[in-house]
Parts: sequence; structure tokens; C-alpha cells
Amino acid sequence: MRFLHTADWHIGKKLHGYDLLNDQKESINQIIEIAEKEKVEAIVIAGDLYDRAVPAVEAVELLNQKLIEINLEKKFPLLAISGNHDSASRLATGQPWYRLKNFQLHTKMTQAFEPIEFVDTQFFLLPYFEPMDASFYFQEEIRTIQQAFEKVIPEIKKQFDPHKKHVLVTHFFITGSLRTESETTIEVGGLNGLSKELFKDFDYTALGHLHSKNAIRNGKIRYSGSPLKFSLSETNDEKGVFIVDTLTETVDFHPLKPIRDVKVLQASFQELLTPNYYQKLDRTCFWQFELKDRAIIPNMMNQLRSLYPFVLGVQRINGRNESVKLQELQKRSGKPEEMLTSFFEDITGDSLTKSQLKWLQEGIQAANDQEVRD
Amino acid sequence: MRFLHTADWHIGKKLHGYDLLNDQKESINQIIEIAEKEKVEAIVIAGDLYDRAVPAVEAVELLNQKLIEINLEKKFPLLAISGNHDSASRLATGQPWYRLKNFQLHTKMTQAFEPIEFVDTQFFLLPYFEPMDASFYFQEEIRTIQQAFEKVIPEIKKQFDPHKKHVLVTHFFITGSLRTESETTIEVGGLNGLSKELFKDFDYTALGHLHSKNAIRNGKIRYSGSPLKFSLSETNDEKGVFIVDTLTETVDFHPLKPIRDVKVLQASFQELLTPNYYQKLDRTCFWQFELKDRAIIPNMMNQLRSLYPFVLGVQRINGRNESVKLQELQKRSGKPEEMLTSFFEDITGDSLTKSQLKWLQEGIQAANDQEVRD
Repeated sequence: MRFLHTADWHIGKKLHGYDLLNDQKESINQIIEIAEKEKVEAIVIAGDLYDRAVPAVEAVELLNQKLIEINLEKKFPLLAISGNHDSASRLATGQPWYRLKNFQLHTKMTQAFEPIEFVDTQFFLLPYFEPMDASFYFQEEIRTIQQAFEKVIPEIKKQFDPHKKHVLVTHFFITGSLRTESETTIEVGGLNGLSKELFKDFDYTALGHLHSKNAIRNGKIRYSGSPLKFSLSETNDEKGVFIVDTLTETVDFHPLKPIRDVKVLQASFQELLTPNYYQKLDRTCFWQFELKDRAIIPNMMNQLRSLYPFVLGVQRINGRNESVKLQELQKRSGKPEEMLTSFFEDITGDSLTKSQLKWLQEGIQAANDQEVRD
Repeated sequence: MRFLHTADWHIGKKLHGYDLLNDQKESINQIIEIAEKEKVEAIVIAGDLYDRAVPAVEAVELLNQKLIEINLEKKFPLLAISGNHDSASRLATGQPWYRLKNFQLHTKMTQAFEPIEFVDTQFFLLPYFEPMDASFYFQEEIRTIQQAFEKVIPEIKKQFDPHKKHVLVTHFFITGSLRTESETTIEVGGLNGLSKELFKDFDYTALGHLHSKNAIRNGKIRYSGSPLKFSLSETNDEKGVFIVDTLTETVDFHPLKPIRDVKVLQASFQELLTPNYYQKLDRTCFWQFELKDRAIIPNMMNQLRSLYPFVLGVQRINGRNESVKLQELQKRSGKPEEMLTSFFEDITGDSLTKSQLKWLQEGIQAANDQEVRD
């Protein structure tokens, strides 16, 4: 059995306010190309198809369109689960009809107890669920997701056909994995992550939830990672999908190339505005700039946006960065005008425009006059 | 061809704040029973499956469950369209898979140009759409829904197979029909209704949108009406479905029996509280009371609710009803306490409780004291 493992599509997610639908569409197109080229027998999506429980209409339209293309047009069997970002009930719409075309979409814990068999492999699709769901099913008090898994995994193993390989698809945090900034922590009421031990009897565990493919270092237990970078902490992450072969027992990574990459750059403001400098850069990327400048730069963000349309933000380094901001604020002294302009700059990453400066000066003057009169 | 015509399920709708999910479930169960008893070959739902574009999770769960029961378990072909209350894009989820089991769900105007053929009949499923959609398709300026239909109907008729019957399923206001209070007026930018003339070439037009089966008096053009009473203006309406037979050219009405009917009753408060009187009433109904009393009744709504759990409201007749309220307000005079208690009663339909009366008296006293001091 040869399948493609992806997860965390988060359709509808925005990056610092920028719409990613087109980027997401392109990444799914590339996933389909890889699936075709690699002649996989199924595509596995390990949760978080949508970014939110009630996605925008445009997100619904994109996911619907791509699922139709993958399953009905390209005829790929699809094995998917709901993640913590999806509304299980909403995502379940259409599910019993999907099944007729080998599109298996599991949104309830108990559905994991019905293995999906393909070629030499049994797939167990265990969606994101709450300890309460396990309590209800097993009729006992279950407070953590670890406790729930200690009941769920043996229940799944009862269904094991010893002549077949066993693949688990699920969507949780495994203890010891590395997080990025764009994941929502699943820790309701102090729940912890899951121990790797739980998964030792599966030939492969296809995980979703963490956005980095390197979140966990284990050949048989893997996060595929998200198809796109969803936060600045993922800038150095390589995004892609895994091709898993249960016969040869190999797992190969296939990278995805984004339309707009997410990059961080250290530079001076002057460099960023110099043609010789910026012509060497891909200005259509999502750029986060770390500015070396100390001086006040009027109209900074607008100037940058005119050259770099997808600026994510600016961070001042050289003593003006986040870590020293608080100390600076506390130590700040001098004329009100200086204090306020530097405060504005620290908070907004931008400098006062001429008009803003004029208003500030007028405001300070008015306050001074008032003081004199009182 | 023998089919059942229903519409305007409005799953998730509330009646004066009361949840109707259980009532809606029961009405769909009765629709299924009628379909089975009448041995229909298809069930037609003429729009407004949901009450809102983003229905609550419980509404999604109920509709999903009932569509599975009708189409996959009971094996009824389903022909449905989106109405003005549905989000076409959201409702379309799953649609190409539904088709595999003869569940045809049309959410786009252009889908009406692909007839669905059953036995001796061609069905044209024309969902609710905006004039703009027709403008875009026909590449000309179309400002009203009447203008749009003047282009859409001939386009549909191009698909007519002269050897078959022709049924149109759609969701609009036909000029001259009678409205109730629970329909949302579809009149964007001064659009008007549709003339009956448009539908003369169809053997039957199965309409949704208006909630009364008697909204239009025409054997071949009919609103099925909603399965439940959704407003006080529908109290005298008989709710049900039509069984249409294209062979015998008959249309038969089959009533639905609600769990909780919506009723209006004229009575005195004393009567409503008298066992001999109320034991003759079905107190589990949704009751709207027209009270003959003139006197202030302390704690009125709570007293009524303890006997009639689903009171919708109280209207004072005998000079205290809506129409004279404004005049009364204007003429109101006397002590502040009397003015405020009668104002409260007029606005809320309820009387001040003892505590409220105490607060009022204290408030008036405090205001008087203040006046004296100033």
C-alpha cells in the first residue's frame, strides 16, 4: 500500500491579515500532482481541513472543489479525519455518500473502531476528540487524552488483522514534539500530550496538528506538517508531504513550492529601498524585516509596502527590539514629544507622519497652555 | 410519476425563542411516513432547508440525519434546491456525491438547464438566485427577477422533451400570493414578484418560499407551505404536503400533525387559571393569549407559564391592545408610579413583580427626595 500523508490544510486561514486561499489552492494542486506522479493508492489528510469551525464561504467553496477533483475526478481514495480546528458535525455533512466513492471521512472517535481496508493495510481513522467522548463510550471517568488513548488504542487493536499492516491516522500533540506559533494548543483543563509508546504497534502513525514535519523524530510516527508556512516561527521549515509505502517500509518527503514564501530578512531601511539590493530579492514573498536602523523613519510601512506588497511586519533590532522594549519604556525620559514619538515607534513599528507629528506638537502645546492657565 | 412536494423546512428556526428542532424532526418523520404510504417515486424539497446561511450545529446534525434516512436508508430519490434562507455554497457541500444515489441538490441557477429525468417526467430544479446571476450568465443587464425569469424559462424550455411531463421546482414570490409573517421578503432593490404567466407551460410548478399552501390558488402552480406554523399569522393554516401524480394529473393534500400546535385564545386571566377551563385545553400548545382583562395582573407571565409552558405572548384586548397603545401613552397622566407600571405592562405584556414594585417606589422616593434637596 502506497499512500500520501498530508495534514493541517487550514483552508481559510489568513497570515497577518493576508488571504491565503490562492496559496492554499496551489499547494493542493501540487499535492495532487505528487499523488499522480507517485502513483499512490490513497491520500490521507490527518485533520484540520478548515482553519475554523465555521469557515468562510470562499473556504468552503475551495475545499469542496478540491475534494471533488481529488476523489471524483482523479479517482483517489481519500482518508480524512476532523482536527481540533474543524467542527466535526459540520464537516460530517455528506459523509455517508462520500463513502460510496472511497472517500472516508471520520469525525467521531468511535469510527476509529471500524478499520478501512486497502490492499495490504488496515487504516484506523481517529479524529480529534475530547476525553468526555471516551468517558461516554467506555462508561468510566476519563480526564486526560492520555487516559482516553489508553482505552482507545486497545479497542482499535482488537480489530487488527494480523495478516495486514496497520496505519493510525490521528490529530493530537505527542509529548516531546516541537511546536510552532501557528498551532492551537489542545490542552483543555490541563490535559497533556500523548506518549509515543501508545503508537508502537502501528506500522505507521500519520499525524496532524503540529505544523512542522520535524516536530517529532521517529520513522514510524510522523507529523506531515502543514502544506504552507502559517507563522514566522515556520520560516525555516521545509513544507511538503510524505509518501509512505507499507510494502517497502519507506517514507519519502516531497517538498511543496509556495507561490509566496515566508521570509525574514535583516537589513537597513536604506538597503531595502535601493534597487541594486531589492532587485536580488523575490519581492512577492511575505517579508518580515529586521531593521538595523535606530533613527525615526517617517511613513515607514507605506514606503516598504510600495516595494514589498506582502510585508508581514518590521522588527527593530540594535537595541530597539522586543526584549528591551519594556526596560526602555521604564527608563524613557526627556521631552514629552520625544517620549511619545519613540513610544509610537516601538509599539507600531512605524514612525509618525508629518501630520501626526504636527498634531502631537499641537496637542502638547495645548496641554502646556492648559497647565499654565490652571 | 408520483412525487411528494414539500418546502420551507427552515431547520433551526425558533418560534418566539422556543427551539423547534424536535417539532421539525417529527414533521419530517411524518413526511417520510406519507411518502412511504403513498408510494411516491421521489421527494421534492423546494428550498429553505435551513433557516439561516450558517445554521447551528444541532440544525446541521438534524438535517444530515434526516437526509441520510430519506435517501440512503429509505432509498427515496430526493430533488432539492436552495432557498433564500440557505447559503447556496454551504448547502452544496457533498452535492456531486449525493447525485450518485439520486439525491439531486441544485444550488446554482444554471443547474436548472440540466433536466433530471424520472419515469415520464423532466424536473427542472431552479434554486433561489439573484438577478445578477442571470446578468452574468446571459451577458446582459438584468435588474429584476421577473426579467431574469423571462430569460431563464425559455432557456429551460429548450430542454423540454415533448414526450415527457415537465415539472419546475423553484423558490420565489409569485405576484398576487398571500404572505404570512414568517417569510423573509425577497425584494432586493425594489424587485417585484413573478407573474404566473411564466409557468404556464409546466405541468406542475412546485414552489417554496411562502408558508401557506393556500398562498396561491392554482391547480398547477403551488406552494406546499411549511411543515410547521412559524408565526402567529399561520395559526389558522393547515400544514402538510402535496402528493402530485403526473399521470393522473392529481394533486392531493396530506396534513401533518404537529407535536405542539400554535393557537390563539381569547379569555380572561381568571379563566386561564381555572382548572375546569384549562383542563379542556391542550396546554402543551404554543399559546398566544388575548386577554380581556383591564386590571393590572402582578407576575402575569410567570403565572401563565406555570400552567402553559409554551406561552408565546399576551395581547390585551378591550382597549389595551396595540392599536390604542400610542394614544394611551400620549394621554397617560397621574402619579409616576401608576404611569410607570402601566407603561411597563403595555411594553412587556407583563406586570411588575413585588420586588420590582418595591424598587420602583424606592426609586420614585429617592427622586422626590433629591428634588426637595435641590
